[in-house]
Amino acid sequence: MGKKFNTSTPSGFPEFSPAEERVRQQWIGVIAETFSSYGFAPITTPLVEREENLLGKGGNPKEIYALKRVMDGDGDSSHSGNTLRFDHTVPLALYVARHQNELTFPFKRYAIGPVFRGERAQKGRFRQFDQCDIDIIGMENLSVANDGLMPAIIIEIFKKLLPNNEFVVRINNRKILLGFFADLGVSADEAKKVLDIVDDLEKLPKEKIVEQLLEVGIDGENIDKLFDFINIKGSNDEVVTKLKEIGGCESFCEGVAELEEVVSTLNNMSVNENNFVIDLRIARGLDYYTGTVYETTLIGHEGLGSICSGGRYEDLASVFTNKKMPGVGISIGLTRLLSQLLELDILDDAMVSHLDILFVPADENQAGKCLELASKLRKAGHKTDVYLEKKKLKKKLDYADKIKVQYVCIIGENELADRVVQIKNMKTGEKENVKDSDVLAFFE
Amino acid sequence: MGKKFNTSTPSGFPEFSPAEERVRQQWIGVIAETFSSYGFAPITTPLVEREENLLGKGGNPKEIYALKRVMDGDGDSSHSGNTLRFDHTVPLALYVARHQNELTFPFKRYAIGPVFRGERAQKGRFRQFDQCDIDIIGMENLSVANDGLMPAIIIEIFKKLLPNNEFVVRINNRKILLGFFADLGVSADEAKKVLDIVDDLEKLPKEKIVEQLLEVGIDGENIDKLFDFINIKGSNDEVVTKLKEIGGCESFCEGVAELEEVVSTLNNMSVNENNFVIDLRIARGLDYYTGTVYETTLIGHEGLGSICSGGRYEDLASVFTNKKMPGVGISIGLTRLLSQLLELDILDDAMVSHLDILFVPADENQAGKCLELASKLRKAGHKTDVYLEKKKLKKKLDYADKIKVQYVCIIGENELADRVVQIKNMKTGEKENVKDSDVLAFFE
Repeated sequence: MGKKFNTSTPSGFPEFSPAEERVRQQWIGVIAETFSSYGFAPITTPLVEREENLLGKGGNPKEIYALKRVMDGDGDSSHSGNTLRFDHTVPLALYVARHQNELTFPFKRYAIGPVFRGERAQKGRFRQFDQCDIDIIGMENLSVANDGLMPAIIIEIFKKLLPNNEFVVRINNRKILLGFFADLGVSADEAKKVLDIVDDLEKLPKEKIVEQLLEVGIDGENIDKLFDFINIKGSNDEVVTKLKEIGGCESFCEGVAELEEVVSTLNNMSVNENNFVIDLRIARGLDYYTGTVYETTLIGHEGLGSICSGGRYEDLASVFTNKKMPGVGISIGLTRLLSQLLELDILDDAMVSHLDILFVPADENQAGKCLELASKLRKAGHKTDVYLEKKKLKKKLDYADKIKVQYVCIIGENELADRVVQIKNMKTGEKENVKDSDVLAFFE
Repeated sequence: MGKKFNTSTPSGFPEFSPAEERVRQQWIGVIAETFSSYGFAPITTPLVEREENLLGKGGNPKEIYALKRVMDGDGDSSHSGNTLRFDHTVPLALYVARHQNELTFPFKRYAIGPVFRGERAQKGRFRQFDQCDIDIIGMENLSVANDGLMPAIIIEIFKKLLPNNEFVVRINNRKILLGFFADLGVSADEAKKVLDIVDDLEKLPKEKIVEQLLEVGIDGENIDKLFDFINIKGSNDEVVTKLKEIGGCESFCEGVAELEEVVSTLNNMSVNENNFVIDLRIARGLDYYTGTVYETTLIGHEGLGSICSGGRYEDLASVFTNKKMPGVGISIGLTRLLSQLLELDILDDAMVSHLDILFVPADENQAGKCLELASKLRKAGHKTDVYLEKKKLKKKLDYADKIKVQYVCIIGENELADRVVQIKNMKTGEKENVKDSDVLAFFE
């Protein structure tokens, strides 16, 4: 291969083949289009942020990459302290902090692009990966109805991207869980630990969970109550009704009211109830979330974990500004998800065609006619190419085979004289001679 | 603002406002769509490559960024030697070298994304910037007709992106210039220097050019001949005819034949002759190019320099593989170009709208109806949002004003009862009551 050079990609930094990349771009296209159809505006912040800002908002110094020029020529120190972003949230907090006086709130933005984490390289873990985020940021406050938009958007996106798969957005509210724990007499400190344990419910066997709960000081009776509670089932309206009956402290009731508003917002938007469900087991590990939380499960592929998660937070940027900015957001870990789905081979093949029509002149004398007709088809919206190399016809048709184009238009000496094109459907093998002047109509 | 943190972006790393970002994405969309309509497939290589590979193919160690974790936790050495790419060409060479046995040649790929150069920060220079590249790579050889596609693609893109501006792709062939110099008795070594000087023709006064030519040993007579030659003007066919009359060494004649094929390919594709012109002054500085070269000039804004350049090269990847792979490609320096065009204020405003319709419920009681209708409009392809905050109507309409949405749909108590929507065109100020059931039709 590479003479003395190692031409492989550095460990943990993914590359995509043309077929994979077409899927990736198709996904990004659908995601971006859906985000903007809901009024989210794209912003692009640099891939590089100041080290102290990333560390200041919870970045892990063992995973953050700093930039250093290979050879420092001129003692230019303005490069030092530059680091690669590890998520889209810290850059958003910085963006909102520096533009708070120009922005109109609620501020709805989307961000799609790579982030970097210097983790140990292992299968399914990437050091560079794409994240697709939306967030709605309020100034001082933000209506809970916004929390209802998020599941609608998740559902719309995955209905488009995975039309042959079923999935469900699972919704909960951390205020309900924390309120319920408080009512059991669990202290605030213990409650955080219990949340973390509950978050592992689906990964660990029940005995293991019980053991951990006992360890943090929850007694057997309360553990039973907890399990009864988080296993409450029913239609979304039924669950809300049961929660209202149970009742509880202020936090609990606030959480239930918020959950009810999320469900009614989704109903107002005519979102199919098969695609979202209240699930009191959803806790989300991060302290960051303070109210509504979401996870998304691909039915039959639960092992993937949540394919899109997010939630409500009370405080986006207080590290960087004195203003209180609550928000709600979701994130799709695109690179990881796509690499898993490609491996499971559950993506729709129709999505990966890249060329519609290839013109093949038998020799150079017909190249001009091919170029002329290809230009017309391209203007009509068909992805069209002309094979221009001086090869034998057999070789040219091999090329068409290999790139898996659906239609080949062959023009030889006779076709040129008769003003026709031989059109071959590569899927069916059918051939047909079509008049020059009818080629455009043929592909309509 | 930012408490103790400096929230500004690091020097040389650009951010885009929502309005600028919409333009950037619109441009990327048009560019990607045009590339793929010509049969180019996207590939994505990592932003990170091995240091030795970047340096091995001409990277400047003073400008290349190496990655280092802020804190090295576990002695994991697999991060060392990772560097950020400085262009799309070296990653392409690596990609083609490592996949040469799976790829189908000619291999047509496009790449759109950020590259990094640790240059001194100054106005109009970025350390992170987007480049949009296409290349066609042959195995052992590649037909010259491919060189004719490039100007057609450039022209199609800028016709779409700058419909109110005129531009011209200027085409030359380095074989012609080098052949002409050889015929004047200029040595190959001198010829390279002369090419570099000719490349500055439009930036420096003629006296300065003459001075430099004398310095490298070209005598006055030859300088006159050179100026006569590079100033040959006329229609493309006329220039080709003149060049054939002049005649010369093998390199010269080969270059003229190639140039003729490029022009005839463009004519076959019915590309408007106003948009491309043979210009014998175009040399392109880089040694890399060996045949056809292109520059693109925006008429009336010549100071911008070339807005899209490229050319033919004989050898993409010989550093990394033993195979000879000639290619032809073009590149648009998107970040720099857009920042210049935004400054000149010559971009079409119509391109920057981001929301079509905003629903405004007078109070919470009408929010449900607003959500319902907004979902319908969104499904019909309109970017639609609902204002969900609990504010006074005046504040809500201020928001609509600020985000510059074109239509506002207001539903108050009366509208809800009468099943109508008050639709306000924010550009004209016109108001109209439209039945619920007719809202979809109204926006068609």
